[in-house]
Amino acid sequence: MDRVGIDIGGTKIAGARVDADGVCLASASRATTPESASGIVQAVAELVAEVDDGAAEGAIGVAVAAFLDRERRRIFFSPNIHWSDYPIADELEQVLGRPVVVENDANAAGWAEYRFGAGQGAHSMMMLTMGTGVGGALVDEGRLLRGGFGAAGELGHIVIEPGGLLCGCGNRGCLEQYASGTALMRIARERLGEPELTPDSLAAYLGAGDSRAHEALDAVCDAMGRGIASLVVTTDPDVVVIGGGVARAGEDLADRIYERYLQHYPASSRRPVAKVLVARLGNTAGVIGAADLARLAAGPGL
Amino acid sequence: MDRVGIDIGGTKIAGARVDADGVCLASASRATTPESASGIVQAVAELVAEVDDGAAEGAIGVAVAAFLDRERRRIFFSPNIHWSDYPIADELEQVLGRPVVVENDANAAGWAEYRFGAGQGAHSMMMLTMGTGVGGALVDEGRLLRGGFGAAGELGHIVIEPGGLLCGCGNRGCLEQYASGTALMRIARERLGEPELTPDSLAAYLGAGDSRAHEALDAVCDAMGRGIASLVVTTDPDVVVIGGGVARAGEDLADRIYERYLQHYPASSRRPVAKVLVARLGNTAGVIGAADLARLAAGPGL
Repeated sequence: MDRVGIDIGGTKIAGARVDADGVCLASASRATTPESASGIVQAVAELVAEVDDGAAEGAIGVAVAAFLDRERRRIFFSPNIHWSDYPIADELEQVLGRPVVVENDANAAGWAEYRFGAGQGAHSMMMLTMGTGVGGALVDEGRLLRGGFGAAGELGHIVIEPGGLLCGCGNRGCLEQYASGTALMRIARERLGEPELTPDSLAAYLGAGDSRAHEALDAVCDAMGRGIASLVVTTDPDVVVIGGGVARAGEDLADRIYERYLQHYPASSRRPVAKVLVARLGNTAGVIGAADLARLAAGPGL
Repeated sequence: MDRVGIDIGGTKIAGARVDADGVCLASASRATTPESASGIVQAVAELVAEVDDGAAEGAIGVAVAAFLDRERRRIFFSPNIHWSDYPIADELEQVLGRPVVVENDANAAGWAEYRFGAGQGAHSMMMLTMGTGVGGALVDEGRLLRGGFGAAGELGHIVIEPGGLLCGCGNRGCLEQYASGTALMRIARERLGEPELTPDSLAAYLGAGDSRAHEALDAVCDAMGRGIASLVVTTDPDVVVIGGGVARAGEDLADRIYERYLQHYPASSRRPVAKVLVARLGNTAGVIGAADLARLAAGPGL
């Protein structure tokens, strides 16, 4: 039985029809209208009509780049979309005429990696996405952790540098200021002396073995390794999955981060440690996870 | 139906018969023989005989100050007791002739606070104990988190001061170096210029309003508040419970820590935040939690 999954990001809304094995059978996208909540609802309705051939059933899964309440029916706020105390589930259900199951986008992506990607078989999985910021998700024994207020897994906001760089959250020294794709570009621009450096040209420098570009990547891997060494003491994952745009640098990235994590985690000499793996589902993880969560919300669970 | 709970610490082994509401009906203790594993097994057998009036049934719950494997049958190692890759469950079951359910001591204490103490009703609870070190436990929607290797909730080893004080775990700057009872005594001895200061005399200074003693307590509360501000982004607790010897300074301690936590957590202006409460069960939490976990392991769960 297929399900429709939707992923509402700050720049793009993706939709897909997804089968029970997490395979996308049809997909489409629209640009996000961050200033218009009704425009987003309309775009979601169009995407559902486009990817759903009539075979998809039941609730539609919707991943959103936003902080949700515990019931996952309302959005507290979103850093990139003009949603504030917004009843997203009610609004979508009214227009779609079908139930929706809403989830934070990083949680949906983490769930997809746990079910169908790099996190399969983990007892406890921690996912960290290195993109515009550092997102996160936590799965324990087959359960996505949502937390007491619905905001578990905001792992980019652990402090790794007290009094350090100012973060969008208002705090200083958050992991995402040192280990995100944004941080990588900032450090690479400094090292290479190219204020206009693009991700593509950084990838070219890395491919060509440029030492300054690799120093920038090392700095970001070191920060992420330091973050992981501190984070693993909380939920004790056996698998850490690295996702987001930076992760597309490939499997070598996971090895670099793993090495730094062990350096910053002396207890590793006395106990088993988490594997570090690169995410497998790329930017389709959000729609796949959303669709799967909608399926499980209706059914008998795992 | 009563159960027997045992709590094996570095200096003392406590035993109790506990009813279904978490009330201790009979209790006893022995000194720990940290160098003799067989001495510990013998002491546990004596304590079970002493507190069990024949009415207690089924498995015996055993809390241990040690790192356990995922199945909670073997001890990897213990910082204070000569256990190394030790099959504690088998050893105890052989002597007691009854099944045992083993749990890490901080987890057992956290579980007791969640079920019968300060954490009752929490969706997601984080417990931090301020004692010799800083211990921790995580409960999410009625489930104690054990982690992928059985060591979830080692919250004292989150790094709050990179490159800071050397910790027993081999890392530098761990929370427990700044927010434990040991840290409080170290700072108070420095401030008061009394290398031989005891916990009792520190309590007297605090009671008399001595400003140097209160500066020491403030420093520890600030470190704990900073640790909480970083930790809450992981499991997003709605309740943080503070236990351990320092917590017996009273409810005022929770208020001081809460204030510092909010100062170090700017997102608190935009979202609901965790309450900070002092533990209610004191040093009986370990036996109560161990007994309750033994009860639930046998029964239909919560």
